[in-house]
Amino acid sequence: MSKKIRVGICGYGNLGKGVESEIPKSEDMELVAIFTRRNPETLETVSNVPVVSMNEMENWKDKIDVVIMCGGSATDLPVQVPATAKMFNTVDSFDTHAKIPEYYSSVDESAISANKTALISGGWDPGMFSIMRVYADSILSQGKTYTFWGKGVSQGHSDAIRRIEGVKDAKQYTIPIEEAMNKVRAGENPVLTTAQKHLRECFVVAEDGYDKKEIETKIKTMPNYFSDYDTTVHFISEEELRANHSKMAHGGFVIHSGETGNGNKDVIEYSLKLDSNPEFTASVLIALARATYRLNEEGKYGAKTVLDVPPAYLSKKSGEELRKELL
Amino acid sequence: MSKKIRVGICGYGNLGKGVESEIPKSEDMELVAIFTRRNPETLETVSNVPVVSMNEMENWKDKIDVVIMCGGSATDLPVQVPATAKMFNTVDSFDTHAKIPEYYSSVDESAISANKTALISGGWDPGMFSIMRVYADSILSQGKTYTFWGKGVSQGHSDAIRRIEGVKDAKQYTIPIEEAMNKVRAGENPVLTTAQKHLRECFVVAEDGYDKKEIETKIKTMPNYFSDYDTTVHFISEEELRANHSKMAHGGFVIHSGETGNGNKDVIEYSLKLDSNPEFTASVLIALARATYRLNEEGKYGAKTVLDVPPAYLSKKSGEELRKELL
Repeated sequence: MSKKIRVGICGYGNLGKGVESEIPKSEDMELVAIFTRRNPETLETVSNVPVVSMNEMENWKDKIDVVIMCGGSATDLPVQVPATAKMFNTVDSFDTHAKIPEYYSSVDESAISANKTALISGGWDPGMFSIMRVYADSILSQGKTYTFWGKGVSQGHSDAIRRIEGVKDAKQYTIPIEEAMNKVRAGENPVLTTAQKHLRECFVVAEDGYDKKEIETKIKTMPNYFSDYDTTVHFISEEELRANHSKMAHGGFVIHSGETGNGNKDVIEYSLKLDSNPEFTASVLIALARATYRLNEEGKYGAKTVLDVPPAYLSKKSGEELRKELL
Repeated sequence: MSKKIRVGICGYGNLGKGVESEIPKSEDMELVAIFTRRNPETLETVSNVPVVSMNEMENWKDKIDVVIMCGGSATDLPVQVPATAKMFNTVDSFDTHAKIPEYYSSVDESAISANKTALISGGWDPGMFSIMRVYADSILSQGKTYTFWGKGVSQGHSDAIRRIEGVKDAKQYTIPIEEAMNKVRAGENPVLTTAQKHLRECFVVAEDGYDKKEIETKIKTMPNYFSDYDTTVHFISEEELRANHSKMAHGGFVIHSGETGNGNKDVIEYSLKLDSNPEFTASVLIALARATYRLNEEGKYGAKTVLDVPPAYLSKKSGEELRKELL
């Protein structure tokens, strides 16, 4: 058997734990170390690999083929990935869409300087959904692509509710509007704002002594986050929130419709229904780590995205097996 | 503006006509010639390009970048593509799954000998569905992938009915069984034969003087084609068949479900609903022609499949535009 791809995890939150749980399913890869910003001794990991301080990553340069970067997009990845890509091939799930071009440049420069390959913005959106948007747009270029998210928890919106005075805790679900999806599926090509595509459903735990009606108004009138949306607010107990709303399910839809010939309609739809957002994202990043290793072996250095990777590179099967079994 | 990709069509049936109708939507490409086995003077084409005998293709070697091969998989492509790939880059939709490995070898040899690139088995299945199977299998490798076809006309099954004595004409629809799809969507990972995934609905025009009951029995008991399936037979008039069953709609589903972590289920689904099977297939082949041209420019010679092509190569947009707009 050929040498296994040696993988490191950088950052041990939900995503890092997901990578740790899913990597044993890839017989061609092995987890070698987990890097953390915290005191390594305080981490309780599941696997039996060394837990190492991020400051000591450099000592592992010759022992790891790809590091899966599991920090957050807001402040971690923009600093950590350009630094790490000078030492290792990397894969990350940077998901601040508006900042991708800038992020790409910064990572590209680092990776090229060290003959490394850095796959940015993997996961499902950006990631698998991006791939679907590009295929659909390339095939039916006169058509229109719609992305719907949910049903799933939006971290940003949940945080926004928690910042309201009198709110102890909250979870916000983004829910795609079925009627809007059906218009798209019917090939009507409607003009839809994000608010016309999604409902917002909020589960809120109020502090004692605060007026729930007032909290509800503050949520529903919050600009950008809620005011344009059909928003529902439910007040529940802390126990109920913990019992019923602590799952990390998510999902969504990419639907593209276009015309060919003389008014013939074609509809392409891709959807994900995920019980665990971080574990699925981890599974995508692991397949992309395999692809990144291969790109680097071929001398393709610098920042790459999922759009630059042939589908076969994600698979542990050979070209011959793929042509026989899955083509 | 940069030079346009010069495209030829080889074979002027439904698929060739589809390519002719869809190619003007790609501003970066131009149709240059249509090659036919028939007498070129007898062809009534829509576009204003030369119609040329296949025997004279060689004279067009320096005038065309990619030839889209639009013949049938049974007898045309296995002969035409290995011959043409010695002169041109090619794209085809060879869809006899079982013979793909053998076909790949034969085309590969020709294309490599001439520094050409030959993209085989494009379209939607094989093609887009293959891509979806490989992505899903790579991400959730412990899961199971199901392909459902329809609702759409199966040419092979329609032909089989027409060979029965007393049948004047017939159309057979393959229809996916909703109940089976829902089991897959629920993550049950059922074991399903092709017959347990699809119904067969037949519309038959009988010749005068033949016993319809007997024809129906012959259809329903036909081994391989119908005997294992839930088959329905409707006898209709010739006019009705022409009026209601001459469309070329088709479609299908690729559904993959797998588990992550501790029993979390993730479901990936891709579907196509196509009013025109040949026009959509043509649209895929056109995007693949762009990719094939690019692969050849990079010196990637020989036979390739959709699994070897980065998604970005199908798009007329630049990497920068794609990262900004669609990632």
